[in-house]
Amino acid sequence: MTSTAQQIDSFIESRLNDYIEETAELCRVPSVSAKADRPVMAQCARLVGTILERHGFSVQQFETEGNPIVVGRATGKSERTLLFYNHYDVQPPEPLDLWTSPPFEPEVRNGALYARGAKDDKGEFLARLAAVDAVRAAHGDELPCGVTFILEGEEEISSPHIAQFVQEHLDLLKSHGSIWEEGMQNDRGQLIDALGRRGILAVELQAHTLTRDAHSGSAHLLPNAAWRLLRALSVLKGTDERILIPGFYDRVKPPSTLDEQLLVTFPSDEEAMRAELGISELGERQFVRGATGASYVRAVFQPTCNIAGIWAGYQGPGMKTVIPAVATAKVDFRLVPDQDPQEVFNSLRRYLDDEGFSDIKLTWLGAMWPQKGEADEPLVALTARTAEEVYGQPSLLIPLSGGSSPVYAFARPLGIPVVSPGVGYPGSRTHSPDEHVRLKDFSDGARHIARILDEFDALA
Amino acid sequence: MTSTAQQIDSFIESRLNDYIEETAELCRVPSVSAKADRPVMAQCARLVGTILERHGFSVQQFETEGNPIVVGRATGKSERTLLFYNHYDVQPPEPLDLWTSPPFEPEVRNGALYARGAKDDKGEFLARLAAVDAVRAAHGDELPCGVTFILEGEEEISSPHIAQFVQEHLDLLKSHGSIWEEGMQNDRGQLIDALGRRGILAVELQAHTLTRDAHSGSAHLLPNAAWRLLRALSVLKGTDERILIPGFYDRVKPPSTLDEQLLVTFPSDEEAMRAELGISELGERQFVRGATGASYVRAVFQPTCNIAGIWAGYQGPGMKTVIPAVATAKVDFRLVPDQDPQEVFNSLRRYLDDEGFSDIKLTWLGAMWPQKGEADEPLVALTARTAEEVYGQPSLLIPLSGGSSPVYAFARPLGIPVVSPGVGYPGSRTHSPDEHVRLKDFSDGARHIARILDEFDALA
Repeated sequence: MTSTAQQIDSFIESRLNDYIEETAELCRVPSVSAKADRPVMAQCARLVGTILERHGFSVQQFETEGNPIVVGRATGKSERTLLFYNHYDVQPPEPLDLWTSPPFEPEVRNGALYARGAKDDKGEFLARLAAVDAVRAAHGDELPCGVTFILEGEEEISSPHIAQFVQEHLDLLKSHGSIWEEGMQNDRGQLIDALGRRGILAVELQAHTLTRDAHSGSAHLLPNAAWRLLRALSVLKGTDERILIPGFYDRVKPPSTLDEQLLVTFPSDEEAMRAELGISELGERQFVRGATGASYVRAVFQPTCNIAGIWAGYQGPGMKTVIPAVATAKVDFRLVPDQDPQEVFNSLRRYLDDEGFSDIKLTWLGAMWPQKGEADEPLVALTARTAEEVYGQPSLLIPLSGGSSPVYAFARPLGIPVVSPGVGYPGSRTHSPDEHVRLKDFSDGARHIARILDEFDALA
Repeated sequence: MTSTAQQIDSFIESRLNDYIEETAELCRVPSVSAKADRPVMAQCARLVGTILERHGFSVQQFETEGNPIVVGRATGKSERTLLFYNHYDVQPPEPLDLWTSPPFEPEVRNGALYARGAKDDKGEFLARLAAVDAVRAAHGDELPCGVTFILEGEEEISSPHIAQFVQEHLDLLKSHGSIWEEGMQNDRGQLIDALGRRGILAVELQAHTLTRDAHSGSAHLLPNAAWRLLRALSVLKGTDERILIPGFYDRVKPPSTLDEQLLVTFPSDEEAMRAELGISELGERQFVRGATGASYVRAVFQPTCNIAGIWAGYQGPGMKTVIPAVATAKVDFRLVPDQDPQEVFNSLRRYLDDEGFSDIKLTWLGAMWPQKGEADEPLVALTARTAEEVYGQPSLLIPLSGGSSPVYAFARPLGIPVVSPGVGYPGSRTHSPDEHVRLKDFSDGARHIARILDEFDALA
């Protein structure tokens, strides 16, 4: 261990309680974005600004149509800048009776801080500030590079304003790498880092065949919206699971050589998924395409076409003999690099028209772009390597996570790599009662991020 | 006109007000079967018995798991018996504020009796009693043939007990022809008689692919119940509307020569349907199979496979990225003579299994058998012919009605023809506020039915 690393570690160790107390201070504000209490959210944004100023950042608060966005900037010796993305909003705390201590009255017990937001995402934020302070102290009160924090207040309600904000503030947010909002270890204490996340296109398809529902005694004459919708859906995907929209796969990149290596070594959760969700090895209830073993772990590189909801006509007990006039489906496509949701949407509309379904109404519900880095990207490699020093083993790299997140909103317009170290573990109870951060994880996370920050300028 | 017919007409004319008063007496009992008020329903059944006895019938009341069934019998000169099916239950009267006079306080105004049940079906019942009395009087206080009335109290809630009751009382109900519960004229004052009604098989199909809903980020691995159900449904019917269950069409009888003649002459409601339900002449919103003209009126001889309801996953605003674990559809098949719902159900189960859908749960929701007479059936011909004497034009015969009704529950086990003369007109407001029967229609219906009864024995 270098002497800088030793200084970092002792700084964090000696001041750990102060950072935990600051985390608790922030957790006392019940900033539940789903409750849409604007004054409370504004109060929390102001406190975030105050905390950033306390730690030497110059702060700007930006109003949006939703909750304020707070940006804090600190300059350093070099022009290079590391960008931290976090959020100050939290999930609703309900059900309240399952909390051992009240969600907005933070309490330290059994070596952990319990509160809504203690981990997600207020604890993550303060651990990063601890890392920044430690690095600054180790370098004679000067940062080796610039640091920018951006905190939004709508992450838990799908970040409706962040992508546009980034687009409109490219100069302000100019940076050379980013630390994403959170991270976690697996059950073997190994830090996990996803190199990429799939994109998503969410749409609604609606068939409308009659001015009103009609009696099924006329079904020999009157067009049924449910049948119409089913026929439109059935041209989207073959029974072999291949999506049939022309050009859909044109931009799909296969896993890289490095991805292939990671896929082979990554511990599969196949058996756990099988047990938890009742998937059988044979018959109708297998994994999609009968995936197992290597095909199971590789499957995430396949884009999907998922029916998230469908409804028409009568849904009550017994029978009602009705011809539905309207039928609706919610469909989400998970997209892999380098698919583009806007292109997929346009192709889908054209395809429906070409297949004779111009009557099907298609509505854009939302989208995120896919984003993926490579394992040999310097910031990724640095994050993995420094993890070994703190956690005793390097990060476990996932080439592509199945879900989606607004990482792309930063990675694409700013052209920067993104990594996600952090302070979570499988028992953190994020989004659940008794959410907590272990003090040891807080300290380890801060030590890890400080090492990344410390060496970040050297990547140039 | 024969002297008997003259006697019948003057009997009915002179006593019309008495029968209207008896109808009103019965309408004062709020026998709404949907409200499941057992004492009220029992009170109404007793009053029906009392009324039947008043008119010379010997009455038996049968308890069922639902409301009582009342049977009244009167013997006649011959062994032949005419069976009248009616019901004493009514539809709920709501919305009450749309009634000009209260629904259960019958009122005569503008030449009509207004009350819930005035037409459907209490007015029909009393018009038939008037016909019986008139025929009996014209024949020296003796009926030319036997008459049996059966009245149930659950017609408005789908007659769950009548078919089994008939099966268990074949001797009691032995008869040679039947007058169905109600009838009506069209807007040109012409009596309409449906020679047949389609059957129905109502089922539920359910796909169950996971132990719980899952996040759509795993859609590349986890089987989606909505897709599974869609694929099962898509094998039921081709895009050409042909139902693909093996053997489904084996028992289908094409329209007879007489049916074909009727189809050609019957005034089509094509333009009215087009306007009311927003059907276009071209494009996606046409009638099924592009039916128009001759194919429009013949289409009722096609059995159908209708999705009456379907649901899975998320149905709210915006998007929820979920993989539904369960998906359900309600499907009804309208069946034409001589299809058998039990056979169709068995074939459907086998077909799903054979197509690899043994995991799809199939539930029987209900069924009715198709039933159809021919235009040259003596009772049908008699009904049409006698209508001309009363209405100035013969009945308009529909070969097959698109809907279903428990006519089969009588016609099949008793082996009898069924006709449906009655006292309705398009403005009767059946099932709606201000339901009424016009006194002229009541009288005409009674005169018509009396003529049928008077000549019924001669059909032997």
